[in-house]
Amino acid sequence: MPESPGVVTLDKLVSLCKRRGFIFQNSEVYGGLGSSWDYGPIGVELKRNLKELWWKDNVYRRNDIVGLDAAILMHPKVWEASGHLEGFSDPMTECKQCNHRFRSDHLDASTTSCPDCGGELTEPRQFNLMFKTFIGPAEDTANTVFLRPETAQGMFVNFQNVLNSSRKKLPFGIAQIGKSFRNEITRGNFIFRTREFEQMEIEFFVRPGTDEEWHKWWSRNRFDWYTRFGIRVENLRMREHEKDELAHYAKATTDIEYQFPWGWGELEGIANRTDFDLRRHSTYSGEDLHYFDEESGSHLTPFIIEPSGGVDRAILTFLMDSYCEESVPTNSGKLETRVVLKLHPALAPVKAAILPLSRNESLVPLSKSVLESVQSTGKWNIEFDDAQSIGRRYRRCDEIGVPYCITVDFQSLEDNQVTIRDRDSMSQIRVPIESLPTLLSEKLDG
Amino acid sequence: MPESPGVVTLDKLVSLCKRRGFIFQNSEVYGGLGSSWDYGPIGVELKRNLKELWWKDNVYRRNDIVGLDAAILMHPKVWEASGHLEGFSDPMTECKQCNHRFRSDHLDASTTSCPDCGGELTEPRQFNLMFKTFIGPAEDTANTVFLRPETAQGMFVNFQNVLNSSRKKLPFGIAQIGKSFRNEITRGNFIFRTREFEQMEIEFFVRPGTDEEWHKWWSRNRFDWYTRFGIRVENLRMREHEKDELAHYAKATTDIEYQFPWGWGELEGIANRTDFDLRRHSTYSGEDLHYFDEESGSHLTPFIIEPSGGVDRAILTFLMDSYCEESVPTNSGKLETRVVLKLHPALAPVKAAILPLSRNESLVPLSKSVLESVQSTGKWNIEFDDAQSIGRRYRRCDEIGVPYCITVDFQSLEDNQVTIRDRDSMSQIRVPIESLPTLLSEKLDG
Repeated sequence: MPESPGVVTLDKLVSLCKRRGFIFQNSEVYGGLGSSWDYGPIGVELKRNLKELWWKDNVYRRNDIVGLDAAILMHPKVWEASGHLEGFSDPMTECKQCNHRFRSDHLDASTTSCPDCGGELTEPRQFNLMFKTFIGPAEDTANTVFLRPETAQGMFVNFQNVLNSSRKKLPFGIAQIGKSFRNEITRGNFIFRTREFEQMEIEFFVRPGTDEEWHKWWSRNRFDWYTRFGIRVENLRMREHEKDELAHYAKATTDIEYQFPWGWGELEGIANRTDFDLRRHSTYSGEDLHYFDEESGSHLTPFIIEPSGGVDRAILTFLMDSYCEESVPTNSGKLETRVVLKLHPALAPVKAAILPLSRNESLVPLSKSVLESVQSTGKWNIEFDDAQSIGRRYRRCDEIGVPYCITVDFQSLEDNQVTIRDRDSMSQIRVPIESLPTLLSEKLDG
Repeated sequence: MPESPGVVTLDKLVSLCKRRGFIFQNSEVYGGLGSSWDYGPIGVELKRNLKELWWKDNVYRRNDIVGLDAAILMHPKVWEASGHLEGFSDPMTECKQCNHRFRSDHLDASTTSCPDCGGELTEPRQFNLMFKTFIGPAEDTANTVFLRPETAQGMFVNFQNVLNSSRKKLPFGIAQIGKSFRNEITRGNFIFRTREFEQMEIEFFVRPGTDEEWHKWWSRNRFDWYTRFGIRVENLRMREHEKDELAHYAKATTDIEYQFPWGWGELEGIANRTDFDLRRHSTYSGEDLHYFDEESGSHLTPFIIEPSGGVDRAILTFLMDSYCEESVPTNSGKLETRVVLKLHPALAPVKAAILPLSRNESLVPLSKSVLESVQSTGKWNIEFDDAQSIGRRYRRCDEIGVPYCITVDFQSLEDNQVTIRDRDSMSQIRVPIESLPTLLSEKLDG
């Protein structure tokens, strides 16, 4: 079936991502590792920009949130206290004939024979989603540790250390970005659901009684964050969890969902975790994870509001939502399709491209000196491209979302001016070379 | 034994790191996980700054290196090809009586009985240093994967994808920052040797025959990078590996070593990996990991120069080297010791602290508006501190290496000026509040 022109599909996006260096299949030369992806030269910059925006908005621009970077491997007691050892599992059934395994809650209730070969299925049993490994030379239960399935617990168990060293007062938060791992049985939709993924999480500690208000505040704040950086509001929605889908620790959860080609999917969840986590860790560790309230002169256990976003899902969302196909006239007057990622300049992986009109012995040295003048600031990821026709280079820049193409032509040799082409409007203006660093700074750093 | 005043020791540093929020013991409330550490609110900013400097110098300021961010879990064939499955192991011996294990190459050749209990030791056997885990629901050999012991292999197996999408010509490089894991038997010295650690690695692909020259160039470049950001040159040295200590893939390796309190230790290694890696992956995958050379019209396998640095070791080095104890006079004329981290401003975790002279009802609102004026730029991590005496707050700022303390006093209410105190010289100047963002930008973003 031919794909509809102008409509973004997962196939189109996966293909663009590979061709242009956003995302490659992990271990591709060995046939790949199921649903595992690597960020290429362009993708890694998008990811860096996204994480940097999140960090600066939540840590640098506020005075009530501090950062943390906890290790991936933690003491196994952490997962007893958190409830992950006991409860973080899926019901699995196995075919006795072909040994294929299935999530039993994904099969029709009446299914008794294997969807693949018709064989008989075993009774469902619980399969824990945490990856286990062994620390030290012996491979036994005593040395079993787990790859964290969420970054959150690192913030809970460090609560007292953070409080003592930062001397923050309620309400205050801890922010963390890092990898988590879940041995998911059902994966897929590109980077939407993978076993290894990155999270950006805030644990915001508040006074009991103010938690519902803060939960609303964070849900709104996080929703607006995505639209501020370009996600169309009609493609986003907030959805409250029904009582029966709430996690064991949550009093309420709001999902921010995006309209993916396969339907609405979770982009970020904002949970009201109550005082569950600090109480559990206090009980399991015997350490006092409380807060001394100077106002009342007594101890209290803060409630926690947790905005928990997926880095990879946010990247997929920004790619999907910025993808456009437009009909534009060529030099010869015919119409052709240009694919353009209309990414917010703050997210754009390459901020500007320096393009000599041709590989000419005078143009290339001048172009290199233009490159040097903007690259030496160290502020932006800048490309230099002198391969192929200028038209093809513009198309390539559009496909990776370069906001500004700077073209050096023969007139530049005489007037020391260059052309800046705006990605979205394709309009061009001519500016002096010496003004470029200031001009880009105004456009990009504002 | 009392510690010598003025001399940095590991104990002093570990204590400062915990007290001030640089580094906490991982899972401390559960007794900790051996040699595992979390970066606290101050430490995470130092780590972020360090990685950002490295990335900007090596990717943004150059036109011949692109970034990558590969997954931690890779196809197990990768580790067959790399030689890690076969060769990445230590010889271990075990006591038959107390079951303690030892690196046999660390024991005296004549040792036959356990250093701990005197029991009989087993014959040495090889113990692989890679962490294993199981992907999918079955825990068997077929599903065994490994946590990467180095980030390098992600760059080798993506060589062709990077080449095709970036269209770089030799010489060019791939840069990557990320976590690696080694199930080390011997660990310790704080964050010097841990099982989970972060690397910053460049794989620089060059024409065979130019490799020795590039190896020299990168060794020099990386040495200078550390001194540029403040490491004293007398505490650094370059050491060439002897033939018998070279890794199986290396033709030559230069270590950049730092003089730690326990002796010289590796901070970064620059290896000439020859064409070993691309050849091995070509053989094991059947994919052609070659480079088409337009000049000669033929294929060639590039040589690789690898500057491989440890993020955590660099942090330890910068902390150690910037630690100073100085005798300074108090207001009453007595001498007291101030501890100050003279970190390069680009590395400093907190760029400026806003300090109202006291918790006064007029000073605090003015101080908050000063905070707002510099914080709203989103460029810097800024602190606000109104607890305790101004002298104690200066000491705290010195201990975390804040380059500029901005004090709001009663005169500020009248002349709209504040005092900026320089961390190293302790000299103070008075400047208009409105000039602060520009002034800090000149001092910090230069």
